Amino acid sequence: MIVELISVGTELLLGNIVNTNTQYLAEKCALLGLSMYHQVVVGDNHDRLAEVIRTALGRSDIVILTGGLGPTEDDMTKEVCAQVMDAPLEEDAHTRARIEEYFRNNIYRKITDNNWKQALVPAGARVLDNDNGTAPGLILEKNGKVAVLLPGPPGELYPLFEEQVYPYLQNLQPEVIRSQMVKVCGIGESGVEDRLLDLIDGQTNPTIATYAKIGEVHVRVTARAADEQEARKLVKPVVREIRDRLGDCVYTVREEETLEMAVVRLLEKYELTVTTAESCTGGQIASRLVNVPGVSDVFREGFVTYSNKAKRKYLDVSKSTLKKYGAVSEQTAKEMAIGGAFASDSDICIAVTGIAGPDGGTEEKPVGLVYIATYMKNTVTVEEYRFKGNRQKIREQTVVKALDLVRRTILKYYKS
Amino acid sequence: MIVELISVGTELLLGNIVNTNTQYLAEKCALLGLSMYHQVVVGDNHDRLAEVIRTALGRSDIVILTGGLGPTEDDMTKEVCAQVMDAPLEEDAHTRARIEEYFRNNIYRKITDNNWKQALVPAGARVLDNDNGTAPGLILEKNGKVAVLLPGPPGELYPLFEEQVYPYLQNLQPEVIRSQMVKVCGIGESGVEDRLLDLIDGQTNPTIATYAKIGEVHVRVTARAADEQEARKLVKPVVREIRDRLGDCVYTVREEETLEMAVVRLLEKYELTVTTAESCTGGQIASRLVNVPGVSDVFREGFVTYSNKAKRKYLDVSKSTLKKYGAVSEQTAKEMAIGGAFASDSDICIAVTGIAGPDGGTEEKPVGLVYIATYMKNTVTVEEYRFKGNRQKIREQTVVKALDLVRRTILKYYKS
Repeated sequence: MIVELISVGTELLLGNIVNTNTQYLAEKCALLGLSMYHQVVVGDNHDRLAEVIRTALGRSDIVILTGGLGPTEDDMTKEVCAQVMDAPLEEDAHTRARIEEYFRNNIYRKITDNNWKQALVPAGARVLDNDNGTAPGLILEKNGKVAVLLPGPPGELYPLFEEQVYPYLQNLQPEVIRSQMVKVCGIGESGVEDRLLDLIDGQTNPTIATYAKIGEVHVRVTARAADEQEARKLVKPVVREIRDRLGDCVYTVREEETLEMAVVRLLEKYELTVTTAESCTGGQIASRLVNVPGVSDVFREGFVTYSNKAKRKYLDVSKSTLKKYGAVSEQTAKEMAIGGAFASDSDICIAVTGIAGPDGGTEEKPVGLVYIATYMKNTVTVEEYRFKGNRQKIREQTVVKALDLVRRTILKYYKS
Repeated sequence: MIVELISVGTELLLGNIVNTNTQYLAEKCALLGLSMYHQVVVGDNHDRLAEVIRTALGRSDIVILTGGLGPTEDDMTKEVCAQVMDAPLEEDAHTRARIEEYFRNNIYRKITDNNWKQALVPAGARVLDNDNGTAPGLILEKNGKVAVLLPGPPGELYPLFEEQVYPYLQNLQPEVIRSQMVKVCGIGESGVEDRLLDLIDGQTNPTIATYAKIGEVHVRVTARAADEQEARKLVKPVVREIRDRLGDCVYTVREEETLEMAVVRLLEKYELTVTTAESCTGGQIASRLVNVPGVSDVFREGFVTYSNKAKRKYLDVSKSTLKKYGAVSEQTAKEMAIGGAFASDSDICIAVTGIAGPDGGTEEKPVGLVYIATYMKNTVTVEEYRFKGNRQKIREQTVVKALDLVRRTILKYYKS
């Protein structure tokens, strides 16, 4: 079954707000195994809205409309949809009673006449009671097509969808869909596709899709089947094959696990503590680690040593190293990592020093040059990178590579 | 002129990501005075993409497409658009050279064959060099219509649009549109609207629009006029009036200035240095400061003191304070601020300690309780907040309030 989303609202067309409703509904529909080929945003304009609804009903089985159900003159989603689907509006006594009740319980709100238009529903529609506002949701089935109308405010939309629309849509579906995510670091999107090309091309169920993130690639394996068990059985061997091909570049196969969560999980597993010694990233690596609830067992303190003086004071980087090789050098990164581990009495230290720009670059040491070092069990590992992009992008890439280096440092030690 | 946005990407249809690009582009187009009636999301599918482009070119003057310009087989926006607009693809030697250059500087990246398709451009298209990736932007004019093709990653899209597409679109417009941003911190969106209501309602040229950001409100004043000078003359008195009404809550009237830039500008102006002492934010405040190029004159080092031990060791917070009042308390925040300033020999220290959750809250000290303190010129200021939302949102709000407290601390000293 094909579902299409239509968001109605001028505030979206003006860029006043981000369309988070669409992301929410799209994720839920994917989870339900519904196919989605189009999402449309249109304003509160009769003719354009009517045309968009007509097009959607022509190419999709289910159309979910959000927004434009309120009491004002601008709100016309219900009126236009009823007209396009040829279902005259009638007053629903139950909804009228609920609106009266709503205002009785809200002593600070004055009930204005235009509120009563919210009690009008298209003939034959199912009314979805809205406990968080006055406009009810509506489901209208006609000529083999379904229109679902929902209010725009997330506080009204989410509970209505969760409690009443999701079960309704689930009942319409014959198939079960299951998907698993494989998250990859240390290899680019085209590199991942190169290694998986025959799988991606050859597979139709499950399908394999890749998503490029900053410094990461996410690979989603999705299967359709008659039941849950069969769907899982289809996904499993493909995920195993992908893991075999990508090896340690795979940092997790858990949907909700981020790179920092995978790093913290490894630290916890081997009972290790980590500290951070950051120059150009200025605290971002530490901040990513602190994203993880309960990180305090493995991360206790971090250093932001932006100046040379701070590198010497807190990390014991030698004056001669800074003088001879400069702050952005393999040698300084090494000493930062060693010094940070000893100063904080941590098992591992991750240190970064680099030129994030836009100024400060030279021919020999250009903007984007970054050294990332780890110290663990008397061993220092240093990597040199030459990142592209603006200051922000260079720093973001540095953070991802640094977190990944912590991960690889631990794996190397415990796997060798 | 009518502009339409088309976002291409299965990850949007699956709800894997929120469509922030569309909000960004819609806001910019509104700023340019372009009318927008439709936004469409479609997947990486030849026929559906072709149909959506055809429809858009039929009803709009300018179509901006984002996503699907990468090197993989899924990426087909350029190919389909060229086909619909009847402009055959040709290799662009300049772009090929740039891709070679890009990979030459990334010694760890292997150049795979599929990358070369990014050097193909539709005949007659203007190529927009992309400094942050391999796929260039493209502008294709044909039969009185314009297609603008841009890569999907925000780090590539934003600079390309800002530097090359915005001026291009501006030139297509007969009227001059000028706008100025007033950025506000320390007062909510409804608070701002309350104070400006008569202005917002009464003004048609310039118009006044408010945008809620995390911990901030941006107010945009936009005028249309025959020429630049006249437009500026319309904007100026309205901006002055808004500044008068909102006072020190206005942190900047410069479009491109962020809160951290405003803070660094103040520090530079008064020749002050700052340090950070962070618990629950874990380095995010330092990282925001380091966003600003050239920050090294005012920020040299920062502390991430997640554990109590680290608070004692680096910030000299007393054992008895931690024991008596706890790590999340007014007293601890105060001592952190004082200790950080002395340890780093900085003029100002900003310190935060709080409960970001999801665990660790009690009835007396719930999740969201945060103390933010500054020390400057022998004076400590502490503020208590009770933020709503998840771990991420609590930390983000904390960072904004902390940066704003540094700003207000400086203003208070120098204005009193």
